[in-house]
Amino acid sequence: MKAHVYVSLKRTVLDPQGKTIHSALKKMGYKGVADIRQGKYFEITLDEGLEKSAANSEVERIAREVLTNPVIEEFSYALKD
Amino acid sequence: MKAHVYVSLKRTVLDPQGKTIHSALKKMGYKGVADIRQGKYFEITLDEGLEKSAANSEVERIAREVLTNPVIEEFSYALKD
Repeated sequence: MKAHVYVSLKRTVLDPQGKTIHSALKKMGYKGVADIRQGKYFEITLDEGLEKSAANSEVERIAREVLTNPVIEEFSYALKD
Repeated sequence: MKAHVYVSLKRTVLDPQGKTIHSALKKMGYKGVADIRQGKYFEITLDEGLEKSAANSEVERIAREVLTNPVIEEFSYALKD
């Protein structure tokens, strides 16, 4: 089983990296982009035979306690078979 | 309309950052993790009134030409209303 964890800056936190990409895209002539925010993405391969509910709680715990800085970031995750 | 772009290292490319997170998780006592790979995640807000097909091709072009290094990375993307 695999889990995908997405960590992004909270809406209220300034994202200078995203702003830089946005202005670069504008200068390069790409159209239609109103805003860009950058985040992190983790692909976790879980041990075979782990039950779905156990996998769910373990991934949620890892995302909350290790992969995310709760002061400025928020996360979401999804399990895939 | 929003687009989510996911950029990750190709399978054949070593991911030292993922390996570091994996060994840290093991040392901290988290169980059930067989592998971790880290990638980047971009949330693109598109201009209102952009047609879905135009948005699709523009996002694909931005992901391929700007956000991804084709030598070592691959990308996927999804449009959300």
